[in-house]
Amino acid sequence: MYPSSIAFWGASNNPMKMGTVQLANILETGFKGDVYPIHPTETTVLGLPAFKSISDVGRPVDLVQLTLPTAVVPGILEECGKAGIKRAVIISGGFKEYAGGGGRELEREIVEIARRYGIRFLGPNCVGIFNSLVSLNSTTIPRPPMGGSIGFASQSGAYTAMINPMLRAQGIKMCQTMSVGNEADVDLVDCLEYFKDEPDVKAIGLYVETIRRPREFVKAARETVKTKPVVAIYVGGGEAGSRSSLSHTGALTGPDEVYDGLFRQSGVIRADDIDQMLDFLWALSMQPLPPGDRIAVVTNSGGPGTSLAYHLEKAGMSVPLFSEGLRSRLKELTGRLAFVGNPVDLTFEMDLTLFEQLLQEIYSSGEVDGALLYGIFGWDFMTNMEKRFPALKQIQEPWIANYEKFLERMCLMPKSFGLPLFVLSFIPPSSPGIAPIIDGDVPVYPSARRAAAAMGAMLRYGRIAGSGGRTG
Amino acid sequence: MYPSSIAFWGASNNPMKMGTVQLANILETGFKGDVYPIHPTETTVLGLPAFKSISDVGRPVDLVQLTLPTAVVPGILEECGKAGIKRAVIISGGFKEYAGGGGRELEREIVEIARRYGIRFLGPNCVGIFNSLVSLNSTTIPRPPMGGSIGFASQSGAYTAMINPMLRAQGIKMCQTMSVGNEADVDLVDCLEYFKDEPDVKAIGLYVETIRRPREFVKAARETVKTKPVVAIYVGGGEAGSRSSLSHTGALTGPDEVYDGLFRQSGVIRADDIDQMLDFLWALSMQPLPPGDRIAVVTNSGGPGTSLAYHLEKAGMSVPLFSEGLRSRLKELTGRLAFVGNPVDLTFEMDLTLFEQLLQEIYSSGEVDGALLYGIFGWDFMTNMEKRFPALKQIQEPWIANYEKFLERMCLMPKSFGLPLFVLSFIPPSSPGIAPIIDGDVPVYPSARRAAAAMGAMLRYGRIAGSGGRTG
Repeated sequence: MYPSSIAFWGASNNPMKMGTVQLANILETGFKGDVYPIHPTETTVLGLPAFKSISDVGRPVDLVQLTLPTAVVPGILEECGKAGIKRAVIISGGFKEYAGGGGRELEREIVEIARRYGIRFLGPNCVGIFNSLVSLNSTTIPRPPMGGSIGFASQSGAYTAMINPMLRAQGIKMCQTMSVGNEADVDLVDCLEYFKDEPDVKAIGLYVETIRRPREFVKAARETVKTKPVVAIYVGGGEAGSRSSLSHTGALTGPDEVYDGLFRQSGVIRADDIDQMLDFLWALSMQPLPPGDRIAVVTNSGGPGTSLAYHLEKAGMSVPLFSEGLRSRLKELTGRLAFVGNPVDLTFEMDLTLFEQLLQEIYSSGEVDGALLYGIFGWDFMTNMEKRFPALKQIQEPWIANYEKFLERMCLMPKSFGLPLFVLSFIPPSSPGIAPIIDGDVPVYPSARRAAAAMGAMLRYGRIAGSGGRTG
Repeated sequence: MYPSSIAFWGASNNPMKMGTVQLANILETGFKGDVYPIHPTETTVLGLPAFKSISDVGRPVDLVQLTLPTAVVPGILEECGKAGIKRAVIISGGFKEYAGGGGRELEREIVEIARRYGIRFLGPNCVGIFNSLVSLNSTTIPRPPMGGSIGFASQSGAYTAMINPMLRAQGIKMCQTMSVGNEADVDLVDCLEYFKDEPDVKAIGLYVETIRRPREFVKAARETVKTKPVVAIYVGGGEAGSRSSLSHTGALTGPDEVYDGLFRQSGVIRADDIDQMLDFLWALSMQPLPPGDRIAVVTNSGGPGTSLAYHLEKAGMSVPLFSEGLRSRLKELTGRLAFVGNPVDLTFEMDLTLFEQLLQEIYSSGEVDGALLYGIFGWDFMTNMEKRFPALKQIQEPWIANYEKFLERMCLMPKSFGLPLFVLSFIPPSSPGIAPIIDGDVPVYPSARRAAAAMGAMLRYGRIAGSGGRTG
């Protein structure tokens, strides 16, 4: 994940080739190390001097990436071994997952070569790696969302790279991703062990179609979840899923319930799909855990408030009625039409000072373990008014400045109180008013169910970590 | 929903007032009828001549909207009655939902006035109406996503208007929405009966915290679902949800299971939250129903394919292995590395002609009742390449033109075969490559679970409609 230099096979000056796209992404993402394209005929590739073979490079190479036709992979890997290379990413497909055409034998061959030379490798049949800490993106997809503290290892290449546009749209950042492909060598267990010791990764995601070493998986996961949450998707169960999975990564899948049990035993939280996994990891990687299950709902609109309360209870939390003391303190702050029992419903209140005072009062009451907020609209909705009232700009400017300061202070609350805060909003993450919340490390969810489920995952992980990872 | 003229109370020339914002939205959305602001002191409001009272208007008024302090509502409503007005939208809150402060009595008073003068009204405590067919938006939120054929009635105002930005981001259009508020007069049963006979509405959504007339609801729903699907969210169950709901719309909620049964009995499909309701309605309003449960999955990437298969089976559908005949016809079309059993996995194939031929072959085989497709990436991912290969533009242009033609033909397939097609994609709906699909009335979902659940809702509605609406 931290190579100083990379040798790359399969890039040329043909822009329609996968290898060329990957090399362009390595260069474009801003990787600072040395990059050596290897090509039999070209003298330069993407403006870099190209080498005929690995022995021509003449400088130390930490990592090789092979985006080559299946049949030539063993020979090249052998050359790499002879050149003393110890790390490889093998993108090429056509191995174990292609059972009919000698792929199984070819895969055995590359494993044997790797063992002989002490090479550890990702793949084959994977899409590459991404490490935002050294701006390294060797996948086919440009513009990964750099930053954050989520580590993700996946038996699906699409889920590591193709989701970049979705992540950018949601404002979720990725620290590191690894596409493990057929797991001929490095597998999910290795990735777990790696992420456990990677200080910048705070929460770990896994996309699973099979677990090839269940015993080792349970051991590694239990150890990992003592300090970092692990969230997994499993989609190998079922008839068609198994068929698909076999042809995808050569994996033999097990019944859903078996994997459910395996994850529970390991302290791994199961998510139902990639979107839910990201919802969970987003919160888990940024927010303090709720010490208990009592959640406050603060809203300025009834429907979202009722929905949040409903889904929190469905997800195993409580939305307790506040004490009389707290209610009367809140009532002093709010006006005639507000309800302060929990949910606290301000009914179309736009006064941000009030939001802030309420949150302060609720967080410091000792009556809740976290809070969910609906009612941040930003100022996008004023568009029609600006046209009609040019003078509105003068009223708006201080109002917006005040709004931004409120958001800044709001985003500090979870850290200062040691209690989590999520926001529910139907406004796109890139909008003014919402973007600063995301930049302030408070996750923003587009539905009450998703926000509540993420809070449920936080509560659950708190219990897992509290028990030293021994129970799910 | 189709007024020729509207009289509006509560708008002024103060841009920070809710009524002003609503009137600006009526004007800005492009409503073609006459609009008469009523204001005690202003001579013009938002550039329109203002009237001191309804009797000063001197022209016929079809609809009034009242965005006024609670206490003055009865008096104004009485004036409207005397002026012969028969339809009203009452935005003002502070009625039944505010039990402590005389709100209940005030609500009884307006109901009594309305009965006396034969006025039918929405609200109080609602956010207004939206009818894209006459460009009428009387809510506080600008830029509703006009068009489409979804009708939505809601006991939450936020869910009818505040979701506009989310709808726009997803590419979902709304035909008509009604915020029913406290339902002092017009309630969800009335809305159902209205939508049933509205030719441009093809699928109906309901946000429910309580059903005040269960017997009439079941009757109206059963009648409606014979020709149009109805999807409902219910979040009134649970302890905190009930508390919140009572203060929100003055509604007494029932246990979750009771409502579950009520919906089943009525042939109403229950969704778990607003995002799922929209997912379901999007497909139901645009796509042909699957005649059975056999779904084809076509993908160029294993993970999304396996995920689609898994979630389709979880949602009660089958992803059957194709017959030998069909498999060999597909194998002829695809190459060495493709799998054709179902899922059909092309493993990073970008040849669109192939996608098209496969879909044609599968749709015409008689072996499936619908299809889900993953693998439309558009050309956004080429960004890095364009910079490095200026000549790429010449290769790209015909390629993109070809892509767009393929998408156009693909979007016609559901209609020509009478079978549904959904797309799974992690690329934002506004991207080139995805936008034409949405414009072509094929829904695009951002997760396998969401796509599969929507297909499940389609299958379920087919069975409900087939049985004349009598079973859920």
